Amino acid sequence: MPSRVARNCTGLVYPSPMSHETPPSANLLDGAALARRIRERVRDDVDAMMREGAPAPRLRVFLVGDDPASEAYVRGKTRSATEAGLRAETIRIPAAETPEKLLEGIAAAREDPDLDGILVQLPLPAGHDRNRVLDALDPWRDVDGLHPENVGLLHQGRPRFVPCTPAGILALIDAYRIPLSGRPAVVLGRSEIVGKPAAALLTARNATVTLAHSRTEDLPAVCRGADLLVVAIGRAGFLTEKFVREGAVIVDVGVNRIGSLEELPANLASSPRIRAEIEAKGRALVGDVDFDSVAPCARWITPVPGGVGPLTVALLLENTVRAARLRRGIRVPAGRDSV
Amino acid sequence: MPSRVARNCTGLVYPSPMSHETPPSANLLDGAALARRIRERVRDDVDAMMREGAPAPRLRVFLVGDDPASEAYVRGKTRSATEAGLRAETIRIPAAETPEKLLEGIAAAREDPDLDGILVQLPLPAGHDRNRVLDALDPWRDVDGLHPENVGLLHQGRPRFVPCTPAGILALIDAYRIPLSGRPAVVLGRSEIVGKPAAALLTARNATVTLAHSRTEDLPAVCRGADLLVVAIGRAGFLTEKFVREGAVIVDVGVNRIGSLEELPANLASSPRIRAEIEAKGRALVGDVDFDSVAPCARWITPVPGGVGPLTVALLLENTVRAARLRRGIRVPAGRDSV
Repeated sequence: MPSRVARNCTGLVYPSPMSHETPPSANLLDGAALARRIRERVRDDVDAMMREGAPAPRLRVFLVGDDPASEAYVRGKTRSATEAGLRAETIRIPAAETPEKLLEGIAAAREDPDLDGILVQLPLPAGHDRNRVLDALDPWRDVDGLHPENVGLLHQGRPRFVPCTPAGILALIDAYRIPLSGRPAVVLGRSEIVGKPAAALLTARNATVTLAHSRTEDLPAVCRGADLLVVAIGRAGFLTEKFVREGAVIVDVGVNRIGSLEELPANLASSPRIRAEIEAKGRALVGDVDFDSVAPCARWITPVPGGVGPLTVALLLENTVRAARLRRGIRVPAGRDSV
Repeated sequence: MPSRVARNCTGLVYPSPMSHETPPSANLLDGAALARRIRERVRDDVDAMMREGAPAPRLRVFLVGDDPASEAYVRGKTRSATEAGLRAETIRIPAAETPEKLLEGIAAAREDPDLDGILVQLPLPAGHDRNRVLDALDPWRDVDGLHPENVGLLHQGRPRFVPCTPAGILALIDAYRIPLSGRPAVVLGRSEIVGKPAAALLTARNATVTLAHSRTEDLPAVCRGADLLVVAIGRAGFLTEKFVREGAVIVDVGVNRIGSLEELPANLASSPRIRAEIEAKGRALVGDVDFDSVAPCARWITPVPGGVGPLTVALLLENTVRAARLRRGIRVPAGRDSV
């Protein structure tokens, strides 16, 4: 790969093309490590609440259908919640049920005063009206922050619950003291769950945010204008070196499950690391960023897995504790809610 | 002004420095004319509703204190409403009253089933908690679109009430068939009332939106990247030629009241047109854009006054009719809600 080697990039030392290891962790934004610290903090907070006689915060997750990825996410969420001392439960609704079944479940959850957090695992199977579902949530227990009232509060700069993935991105940026004020940031992808709230949060931190998307003209040039690039489009390895200004900070939100070498786009198929992983395990998780292409030019970059993913779960736990505090009138400790 | 004359700009023919006239209207985005058309449409809609036996939509405006600009705005709103066949009334609250007085007034309005639109003229005098006021509004009659639920619906791409000024901007862009999809747009100013909702609306139309603000590094270069530039910062004549790419479309949201020559910033003080206006009338309204500097390079530009201002009022009337329809279960005519 002469073009990569020849380029005079600062930041990561490019790993040998024959190496299957990721580059040195010094320039990796280690989401897994930060997520562990947040989960420990949540555990301490839950312990403190319980010492004061309060019940452990309780989270209910609705899982509709049997999408394997959604099943894995929900398992991860409830397991992490339980490990952090929360109560967590999953209500499974078969895909064959009518959409009303889910709405009835949400209505029942609203009636249960012992529930602190309620979330519906997205995406929902075809046939569900996502907006109707989000509108049915109790905005005070909407720990994913997707009810319109919570979306509005976020955009007004007074968030009640920040959606977990963008909250995790901000936590990571803060943990590594990445400067934002005044700096050009590009958020690639305009989803309700990641792109739009991430843009709002970065704007609130005084970054100059461009929200780019599939229709953006000359996308590589737009992305090259960014000191911070948040990529959330759900396309494996889409973002290559040509999108990246030297020294940029890259946050890769993509989690794309690859089941065979044939599913890899050509640029990722040339990665010995990914090929080795698929050959060894029969599958690989890859981000929206072509890590091997981009890392040599980036100052900081998230790995996939181990970047934003674990933070999404950790921030869900934090939001659930926050919901419990808000409902029970317990003040959030000073300095705890920086986003 | 040799630098302006020498510059090889397309778009407007630069008016002679000795002329007090604005450039030819062909390249002006004529908000006043479009506002007239919208007000006529509102009048037709109200007539149709009344022919079906419904009462005329009714708007209540709360005006706190005696700021002359706010008084003028409220007068303009209620007069235009009445002219379009709506019922409109102003509740005046002296600045000396406690903030609770306004909240009590809003609570009473919520109890009145014969009110379709309720708005609080902003900005509020010191001592009021603006968020508490906005949260107290009925989201189904919040015709300014500032209740958090309405803000959230807007950002989720399913607006109930679009804030009037950004709605006016989009109406103007549509009326002149300014292409947006994929194009770089810069919104300068991140207010809740203009900047943020304008950015959300432009993103929904597939523009690539950068939200720039006072902390943005190298603001002129950021603005020069825009095909469409929406300026809403409240600083007279701030935006000069150096911020503008040749052929850009400029929407000036600023309404700055200048009471004497001494109040003019240096760049505007050199404008014979503005000097003549102040000398003749003792005052002038100027935008955030230095029109004389920018117009020669712009393809389209809004004048001030006569640009966005009249549209804000017209869209308020439209929102009030929409509120009446939503509350009474009357379908909005197809193709009517393009924003």
